[in-house]
Amino acid sequence: MHRFYDRYDTYRSLIDARLATVIDRGEPVSMYDPARYVLSGGGKRIRPVLVMLACEAVGGDPRDAVEAGVAVEILHNFTLVHDDIMDRADTRRGRETVHRKWDENIAILVGDELMGIAYKTLLNTEKGDVRALTRVFTDGVIEVCEGQSYDKEFELLPTVSEEDYMMMISKKTGWLVAISAELGAIIGGADAGRRAALNEYARCVGRAFQVQDDLLDVVADKDAFGKPIGGDIIEGKKTYLLVKALNRATGDDLALLQEVATRVAPHDGLVERVTEIYRRYGVLDIAREKIEEDTEAAIRALDALEDTDGRQMLIWLAQMLLERKH
Amino acid sequence: MHRFYDRYDTYRSLIDARLATVIDRGEPVSMYDPARYVLSGGGKRIRPVLVMLACEAVGGDPRDAVEAGVAVEILHNFTLVHDDIMDRADTRRGRETVHRKWDENIAILVGDELMGIAYKTLLNTEKGDVRALTRVFTDGVIEVCEGQSYDKEFELLPTVSEEDYMMMISKKTGWLVAISAELGAIIGGADAGRRAALNEYARCVGRAFQVQDDLLDVVADKDAFGKPIGGDIIEGKKTYLLVKALNRATGDDLALLQEVATRVAPHDGLVERVTEIYRRYGVLDIAREKIEEDTEAAIRALDALEDTDGRQMLIWLAQMLLERKH
Repeated sequence: MHRFYDRYDTYRSLIDARLATVIDRGEPVSMYDPARYVLSGGGKRIRPVLVMLACEAVGGDPRDAVEAGVAVEILHNFTLVHDDIMDRADTRRGRETVHRKWDENIAILVGDELMGIAYKTLLNTEKGDVRALTRVFTDGVIEVCEGQSYDKEFELLPTVSEEDYMMMISKKTGWLVAISAELGAIIGGADAGRRAALNEYARCVGRAFQVQDDLLDVVADKDAFGKPIGGDIIEGKKTYLLVKALNRATGDDLALLQEVATRVAPHDGLVERVTEIYRRYGVLDIAREKIEEDTEAAIRALDALEDTDGRQMLIWLAQMLLERKH
Repeated sequence: MHRFYDRYDTYRSLIDARLATVIDRGEPVSMYDPARYVLSGGGKRIRPVLVMLACEAVGGDPRDAVEAGVAVEILHNFTLVHDDIMDRADTRRGRETVHRKWDENIAILVGDELMGIAYKTLLNTEKGDVRALTRVFTDGVIEVCEGQSYDKEFELLPTVSEEDYMMMISKKTGWLVAISAELGAIIGGADAGRRAALNEYARCVGRAFQVQDDLLDVVADKDAFGKPIGGDIIEGKKTYLLVKALNRATGDDLALLQEVATRVAPHDGLVERVTEIYRRYGVLDIAREKIEEDTEAAIRALDALEDTDGRQMLIWLAQMLLERKH
């Protein structure tokens, strides 16, 4: 499997190299300095690599998918800049957020501009139907905004149904992963069936990735995780775990979880208490099963594709994300 | 000329009718209620009508340009929602701004979503090269953001050169007018020469319109204007008049204008004092000449087009905007 790791790194390097040059203007300084800062923040670059891999898995040249991959990564970063304003977040990936380092007006504008640059970059794509590419990309913008909107609505509620939660999270974080694979498929010249299969694969991978994120917040090895354990609990974030527990717990347990969800619970000893509730109601095991189920469903979706090296690498990617520790 | 007025109204009605249905989702309510509120705010709809007229002037069917026109209007409204946050504006066209009626988070998100809906609507266009349309539209997004960014930078300066000011305003307000005509030209099947001519026409019209706006703030008939005379002076807005005056005045006059520009001037009697300075340095006449020059240049640009009814209507539009009183 080593060669897949190496290939992932190669693809990520191509993406990072292009991200470093994609902003080709310097002025106005108050816009392009922070915009460059955002795009140099690193990250796993899962979405753009997925665009390249999906293109390859349907027989295309992954290099044809670099511009679209970079476009998705820019779009993703635009959502982070605006979400950080709304969430009053001070840091992102260990660095100050744009609205903290500069100010809120600049963060609003930089986000807007990044969306423009994302489209501009996408339109450099030479393979695949440009209307189809732009439509899929635009649906991504709309769904991500809807997801964030639902998320902010749910923040005000003491509880939320599992169905509503899954709907919200599929829009807020799943959609861009799903369109990453779909864009790659379009560029690679896939027919409708393969396009849908790759969308389904990525939708499942994205969901597994999200639940894994939520689980790691509670069970990760502190040193490997890179941020404090239980941060989501302290922040009252409506994670998969919290929603599952809210829909199962009763009595004092439920009362405490509702306090967590509305961010009025006292922080002292809270992570331990909530983790204990999660264990008692079997929520951690439910999450583990959900991750496995989704990973299997992702791999099953790839049955629609010829068994190529590209397809093998997508299988590897789904498994690798499942096994990650941070 | 009555029939041109009627035709303008007909086209505007088509745009308004489509704007009323363009948002076809109801949930999340916290997003789509304010989004609908924004698009129902009325206005002259100059940009979308211009898309239709430009299409017609190069021999296309103006009805083919409705989706693109609506897209530009939505894009324009997205910039207003975000600009209003940045400018801490309480009202817009006599109604509460989104961030005042709801809150800032919602205004950020609704703006983002409107950009997505704008692209989605543009992509419904069936005539014209879709890559060219989307590229021109995307350049509009980028330039408008740059313009707003310069505007916010300039707000912090006591003075700004005329050259920098014209550059800023051409991005912030001129660009979307220019691309309106260009999009219409592309949809109508214009060659590169006619496309450029229509862009030039609209660029000049947009500039004349902006300077006229600035002039009306000072010289308009109070009853026809619909808002208080001198509002720009009180707000310290860097208008064409203020920039021209800043680059001409000396001594106490200059000192006062710099206080206006940095918003520290006492409001009492300010409008009268500044208007008097504008008169004394001939700034009002300079503005009137500029508007006439730009209107003539706009009409001259249309020499590249066949003399059709559509072209005549564009000439009428430029003159009508020049003669408006509000």
